Amino acid sequence: MLYSLKAGGKRIRPALLFATLDALQCKHPASEKIATAVEMIHTYSLIHDDLPSMDNDDLRRGKPTNHIVYGEALAILSGDALLTYGMGMLAQLPNVSAEKSLELIRLFSKASGAEGMVGGQVLDLAGETKELSLDELEMIHRNKTGALLSFPVIAACILADTNPDTRYLLEQFAHHLGIAFQIQDDILDIEGNEKLIGKTVGKDERSEKSTYPSLLTLDGAKEKRDEHYEMAIQALHEVVKLPTMLQEIASFIVKRDR
Amino acid sequence: MLYSLKAGGKRIRPALLFATLDALQCKHPASEKIATAVEMIHTYSLIHDDLPSMDNDDLRRGKPTNHIVYGEALAILSGDALLTYGMGMLAQLPNVSAEKSLELIRLFSKASGAEGMVGGQVLDLAGETKELSLDELEMIHRNKTGALLSFPVIAACILADTNPDTRYLLEQFAHHLGIAFQIQDDILDIEGNEKLIGKTVGKDERSEKSTYPSLLTLDGAKEKRDEHYEMAIQALHEVVKLPTMLQEIASFIVKRDR
Repeated sequence: MLYSLKAGGKRIRPALLFATLDALQCKHPASEKIATAVEMIHTYSLIHDDLPSMDNDDLRRGKPTNHIVYGEALAILSGDALLTYGMGMLAQLPNVSAEKSLELIRLFSKASGAEGMVGGQVLDLAGETKELSLDELEMIHRNKTGALLSFPVIAACILADTNPDTRYLLEQFAHHLGIAFQIQDDILDIEGNEKLIGKTVGKDERSEKSTYPSLLTLDGAKEKRDEHYEMAIQALHEVVKLPTMLQEIASFIVKRDR
Repeated sequence: MLYSLKAGGKRIRPALLFATLDALQCKHPASEKIATAVEMIHTYSLIHDDLPSMDNDDLRRGKPTNHIVYGEALAILSGDALLTYGMGMLAQLPNVSAEKSLELIRLFSKASGAEGMVGGQVLDLAGETKELSLDELEMIHRNKTGALLSFPVIAACILADTNPDTRYLLEQFAHHLGIAFQIQDDILDIEGNEKLIGKTVGKDERSEKSTYPSLLTLDGAKEKRDEHYEMAIQALHEVVKLPTMLQEIASFIVKRDR
């Protein structure tokens, strides 16, 4: 469990939580536990995705994948335990009312499970062997990565007791950012440097998987990514006009080389 | 998810929840959701345990295992989604205070994860290749099966607002019952009828795994099983002297042929 948790990675989900709280001018003692829980769920999903029967990846975050080091059985179990532990952490949040904790757990379970991340992964597997439409591709990514990228933003809104309008706008921000993030992931699989990214590149093309570049061309994908970035920033600016860490993270996500 | 959930099985964990509530003369509208959540977690653990990299079983509950029907990738994901969904269900219990719901989620996460079921499975894998002491064997089973067998009994105590003495006694009941259950599992792997049990028998002996019969002889294991059954019943009778469904379930667990 610790091997994969401590392997590094961009920590984008925790960063989104802290930066959203910062944009809302809220400090909250529960933020670290929520950030850790989200990173645990993200990490479990990477461990399971990398398994031989799934994406069969040997390299992640620049290191051998969990099953390469510990074997498949322990890799599956460490993922199971990270998921279980992460969910349980949300039942132990300091200075959060029991009602709010339950709301967070409900949203977290939905974002991570069959109606979110796991469901997206199933759609992704099902779509591997056929050409997808852009709508189908977006549907996959909205679930597979979007849901768990949005969760920390929504969690921050809940901790900060925002009004429904603010929460709606920040949900829009997270939604568009999630798509921009995924498009950039697809672009990096073509243009990226394996050493920087820390995982195998060129896999999508070899497997003839539908991606944003394969459907839109590389330039078209970049244009689409920038459109979603702009929509994200527009929604964010309706909440807060000043420069924020949140905007910096959004810009990092779009310009990142890893 | 539904294939494995609906494959049948003994439903012992739900039965323990309902029977404990009955012994405590409590009816509670949340009992069905909790029972379903526990059965979901139990089912996910079976799906993952049956995978080729774990126990590599083709048969479960008399039917082909999940990965035989849907392939390994979907089997892993359906387990992940059942776990996530089961945890989330405890955040939606009717007529349970938010504080109690959180207590249930904390206990559920602990019983299912690294400190409980998954941890026991890791110890079990680690112990496969060496001869274990009786204490080590009990430690494995207390975590691997005991924790999730105890949870529904404890959950019933929480729903029924029992006093600490009653809860302690019922925890003792569940603890001894869990060990008796596991010993009977080991005995059935030797004496059992594959058609009735619905899974492959004779696996322990072929794999030279440490079991209660291998450490104590078959007769010694039966004696040990009956001892734990007696201790379970003794604890139960300190709570309620009348005949209960709970006692019937305990007796079924010890005498079962499947």
